[in-house]
Amino acid sequence: MNISKRAMEMNFSPIRKLIPLAEEAEKKGVKVYKLNIGQPNIVTPDSFFEGLHNYKEKIVTYSDSKGILKLRESFVKSYKASGIDIDVDDILITQGGSEAIFFILMSICNEGDEILVPEPFYSNYSSFSIFAGANVKPIPTTIENNFHLPPKEEIEKLITPKTRAIMFSNPVNPTGTVYTEDEIKMIGEIAEKHDLYIIADEVYRQFVYDSTPYMSTMKMKEIENRVVLVDSISKHYSACGARIGLIASKNHELMNYILKFCQARLCVSTIEQHAAANLINTMDSYLEDVRIKYKSRRDLLYGYLKRIPGVVCSKPQGAFYIFAKLPVDNAEKFAKWLLTDYSYEGKTILIAPGPGFYFTDGKGDQEVRFSFCTNIEDIENAMIVLRRALEEYNKQ
Amino acid sequence: MNISKRAMEMNFSPIRKLIPLAEEAEKKGVKVYKLNIGQPNIVTPDSFFEGLHNYKEKIVTYSDSKGILKLRESFVKSYKASGIDIDVDDILITQGGSEAIFFILMSICNEGDEILVPEPFYSNYSSFSIFAGANVKPIPTTIENNFHLPPKEEIEKLITPKTRAIMFSNPVNPTGTVYTEDEIKMIGEIAEKHDLYIIADEVYRQFVYDSTPYMSTMKMKEIENRVVLVDSISKHYSACGARIGLIASKNHELMNYILKFCQARLCVSTIEQHAAANLINTMDSYLEDVRIKYKSRRDLLYGYLKRIPGVVCSKPQGAFYIFAKLPVDNAEKFAKWLLTDYSYEGKTILIAPGPGFYFTDGKGDQEVRFSFCTNIEDIENAMIVLRRALEEYNKQ
Repeated sequence: MNISKRAMEMNFSPIRKLIPLAEEAEKKGVKVYKLNIGQPNIVTPDSFFEGLHNYKEKIVTYSDSKGILKLRESFVKSYKASGIDIDVDDILITQGGSEAIFFILMSICNEGDEILVPEPFYSNYSSFSIFAGANVKPIPTTIENNFHLPPKEEIEKLITPKTRAIMFSNPVNPTGTVYTEDEIKMIGEIAEKHDLYIIADEVYRQFVYDSTPYMSTMKMKEIENRVVLVDSISKHYSACGARIGLIASKNHELMNYILKFCQARLCVSTIEQHAAANLINTMDSYLEDVRIKYKSRRDLLYGYLKRIPGVVCSKPQGAFYIFAKLPVDNAEKFAKWLLTDYSYEGKTILIAPGPGFYFTDGKGDQEVRFSFCTNIEDIENAMIVLRRALEEYNKQ
Repeated sequence: MNISKRAMEMNFSPIRKLIPLAEEAEKKGVKVYKLNIGQPNIVTPDSFFEGLHNYKEKIVTYSDSKGILKLRESFVKSYKASGIDIDVDDILITQGGSEAIFFILMSICNEGDEILVPEPFYSNYSSFSIFAGANVKPIPTTIENNFHLPPKEEIEKLITPKTRAIMFSNPVNPTGTVYTEDEIKMIGEIAEKHDLYIIADEVYRQFVYDSTPYMSTMKMKEIENRVVLVDSISKHYSACGARIGLIASKNHELMNYILKFCQARLCVSTIEQHAAANLINTMDSYLEDVRIKYKSRRDLLYGYLKRIPGVVCSKPQGAFYIFAKLPVDNAEKFAKWLLTDYSYEGKTILIAPGPGFYFTDGKGDQEVRFSFCTNIEDIENAMIVLRRALEEYNKQ
């Protein structure tokens, strides 16, 4: 019986695929520090659970395919507070940022169309492109340049008649890079010149450290028709399992097409939407506290990594990841070895190997993504293990 | 900027597209009886809300892409009670039956592949086929034959080298037909002979009335490798807004490919899964009560419809719809007219026009789907309105 080409092409999640090996290690009694996944250990705000428990309907009915009005209104308020002008009619609620990206690509790409994406990138961008029959065309960025964008001409060289959009996360997953205002404007200019959409995944928007100013693509009013924003409560409010995200755009023609996809899947979980709508009543201090926590974790993880001989990395300005180059022959092999053959005082670590974040074969072979959304103690222990592990691995 | 072909091809939901006209009528003070949508008015079991309120985690984390174990186990138990042999490893939890159908088609169809579907069918089958680049090839059924399947040879004639599966709901949405054991076995024989998958959407499985015996496709052990079951809590437990469904299959090669799609969207709403897992503790009498309610509503709606001159319909054996032929020139025009130009004693009705359930142009022009998942009084009032409306419409 037939299996589709896309099903065969798709990869298992590079972030999740080592989990079975980690489980094996745990069965043998080894403590595994999980720095692979972007699952915050911060508690979800009380407001979310209040919203959940305030749901008093007797029937869990379908809700509006666009998302419930109360939730869309709550997002509008929160954007307003960030100086971003988005109206209720500019928003479609989605089942997490994942469904948002998927619906956008389904709406703008035909089979064989191309999407420019700065590389390394969040691995599911590749999956969703395959869903839509589109091809990712990577914009190369380098660890030496802190993964900032190459000059305009370099990007323009990659554009063909089949290019439909430039898609990126900002702050960037997996590198923590925060694009400068000039970089965002450059993307805007390229999109305008070559008639492209801009798909801006800003799900780490609130996590910008130091004094880096954050520039949302939605602020480019002159090209607002090209901008499609992806957002989510998952990371900001530590509610990954709620699966509440959104698409926002001033391009109502496009949004009307995307609505067809929303209608086909009927609606997003009704109760979770009510819970998410109540996040607007979260204490102002919540996100501030979270930012302070992540910043100190970043400093700690970065401090440790910098002191390990041979490790190359820069201090990320946003998100909760460090993308580092390790002194190993092969990051994938090393990551597996950590789980199958190594432990230090009964402890080891689970990390996400770099190649999973690259489309280009052979890239990222020595690189690894560390997530710092776990606690300080685990980060410290993980780094002690890593330092020893690297010594041991390279002895062999 | 580009809009994809699939986005242009897709239709807005035929069940939902008249809602704006209904809202207009309501603004004018007209009471609109909504017999268009399969949204039960039965209360969701207490067990669901108990499960919801028993969720005591402090962080709403991602859950297993396959679905949480507790939920999969609860489904296994409930299938066992129905004599259906499904194991925990045969199940992938999905965001409603919608995502189930979508992921299955994405996994088995390439661009241009064909799916045989008895017509009329649930309109979103068309949408999900477009998502996957596949073409629906309708198997014609007729109101005169109570929408039962045509002979084997007629179905086999429709098979081409591009045919990948036979997909159907049983009990059938929108007709309420319940396929006989012989019909299910015939589908099995055709699938075996022509190397096809069987995609069986059994989300109305529990709603079979009279003494019609119900035959699940999962009971055909000899071809179990071809069978892919779609199920959902939406209709059975009146929890449409929870968006909890599943794919079940003994074909683990296929399931492993489908898992890639599950991983790409990370997980299904974690809390709703916990709530749904507790449905296993629903009183046995719940589904029995619901069945009795629906049966009496069916008898009432059918009784009224039969007495309206010119209306053709048969008594549905399952689900909660009657698909009837009305004495009108055009069902779509009539359905709109009911909302824009007609009311009887300040009341009118919202119905789903037949053509939305057909792929073949020109079919279903006089047909309409009535849902009887609303209350007795509304059904009675709606039928009084319909009778008068038909007289009035045909006078013009």
